[in-house]
Amino acid sequence: MYSFETIIRVRYGETDQMGYLYYGNYAEYYEVGRVETIRSLGISYKALEEEHGIWLPVVNLEMRFIRPAYYDDLITVRTEIHALPDAYITFHVELFNEQKKRINAGRVKLCFFDATLKKVVPAPEYVLEKLAPYF
Amino acid sequence: MYSFETIIRVRYGETDQMGYLYYGNYAEYYEVGRVETIRSLGISYKALEEEHGIWLPVVNLEMRFIRPAYYDDLITVRTEIHALPDAYITFHVELFNEQKKRINAGRVKLCFFDATLKKVVPAPEYVLEKLAPYF
Amino acid sequence: MYSFETIIRVRYGETDQMGYLYYGNYAEYYEVGRVETIRSLGISYKALEEEHGIWLPVVNLEMRFIRPAYYDDLITVRTEIHALPDAYITFHVELFNEQKKRINAGRVKLCFFDATLKKVVPAPEYVLEKLAPYF
Amino acid sequence: MYSFETIIRVRYGETDQMGYLYYGNYAEYYEVGRVETIRSLGISYKALEEEHGIWLPVVNLEMRFIRPAYYDDLITVRTEIHALPDAYITFHVELFNEQKKRINAGRVKLCFFDATLKKVVPAPEYVLEKLAPYF
Repeated sequence: MYSFETIIRVRYGETDQMGYLYYGNYAEYYEVGRVETIRSLGISYKALEEEHGIWLPVVNLEMRFIRPAYYDDLITVRTEIHALPDAYITFHVELFNEQKKRINAGRVKLCFFDATLKKVVPAPEYVLEKLAPYF
Repeated sequence: MYSFETIIRVRYGETDQMGYLYYGNYAEYYEVGRVETIRSLGISYKALEEEHGIWLPVVNLEMRFIRPAYYDDLITVRTEIHALPDAYITFHVELFNEQKKRINAGRVKLCFFDATLKKVVPAPEYVLEKLAPYF
Repeated sequence: MYSFETIIRVRYGETDQMGYLYYGNYAEYYEVGRVETIRSLGISYKALEEEHGIWLPVVNLEMRFIRPAYYDDLITVRTEIHALPDAYITFHVELFNEQKKRINAGRVKLCFFDATLKKVVPAPEYVLEKLAPYF
Repeated sequence: MYSFETIIRVRYGETDQMGYLYYGNYAEYYEVGRVETIRSLGISYKALEEEHGIWLPVVNLEMRFIRPAYYDDLITVRTEIHALPDAYITFHVELFNEQKKRINAGRVKLCFFDATLKKVVPAPEYVLEKLAPYF
């Protein structure tokens, strides 16, 4: 498996009137987590789109909210890939606060989508090559 | 059970560079859907917070993304309550585009949280009374 | 001149921990205001983009924040066009709460940008024709 | 005067269907810029709120959009304070892309607001002391 951690600071505009990181903003933290995770493998999501014409739309999202996150907290986003992708890739995500308490856990499944052909396709070879050593 | 429909138009700022409603923005559509659903029952979420000191933080979220939504689309958010709440309430949500195609389906579970006592509590009586006729 | 009013309800996710509509979310209210304003004239912003290849990127934004807006408030967005556009169009915007108090005032200037030619162009004829009767 | 630079990477969810950083998201970049700027002076905005009961609502915002920002760009936010605050503080902001081109410039004015007294108050002494050496 492959695991990577990214740190995100909670912005004021991301809080809600409970003083919590609004539940709808976690999806963006998941996005940053998976983008930085594949970057750490040498894969640029931007290049995947622009040079290879592959989009990664989300097909499934599951999240448990365990504890709130607060303004200005430094949140550690741990993102893991547990299996080599086929036409789909699943990221397992856990968020921790500065006290190392787990605040959220979930997973997000995306498909490889050829933006020109307009259909789901297998993960590109060069993506599989970068991931292969970990499986 | 209780079912209610709300219509939301996709804003430009809610799209992403695929031209899709960004996956992270669906949670806010779910929020609007459940708030309007309980309003249709005579329950104001704002009053629940301000007058009764009850918050409704989300504890679980699940979503399937079936088709994209696009800028300016009128999205119908169908929100259903399938069981009387205890200390938790689950909303079942389906989103449809203008062609009546289902684009997203999921559910979100929230807890009744007493903001003063700082603990999970049973749903207030007046909430149960409004819901009771449907179960 | 041309004036049009749109009503937007403040979403929970748009508040911040002061309990205010976050200042960064007003720009989206301005966006909804101007889109509905031109729709009321028979101009679809979506069609302007898709059928005419014209984008309307923002070049200037000014806002005064006079009073806070709160969760669940119904905000009236009054959007005015004070002059026929050339290559630029300016919308003058005022926001009012349910007590008819003005909470925000500002203006936003956009350019007509040909997405194929990649340059600023005069407003399309059919847009000017829709606006002409008001000036 | 005091000047400080922060770097923010454009998130996918912050783009719109033009492929630009949505104009409404710049306000959040300004927020991050000013928060990090005062942190660099030894002032925590979180502590200002929590320990001193002082809020900093925005009263005025002006922005010029010069060039687009794109997904995954590393944006440098240069934030400057040109004068000692009284009951108001103004931040002058410039954003630069990785090619050192200026993409946005503006300023944002906030007031010091006592959350208990519910009124605008002079900047706290300890804030002025941190800033004084630069003026």
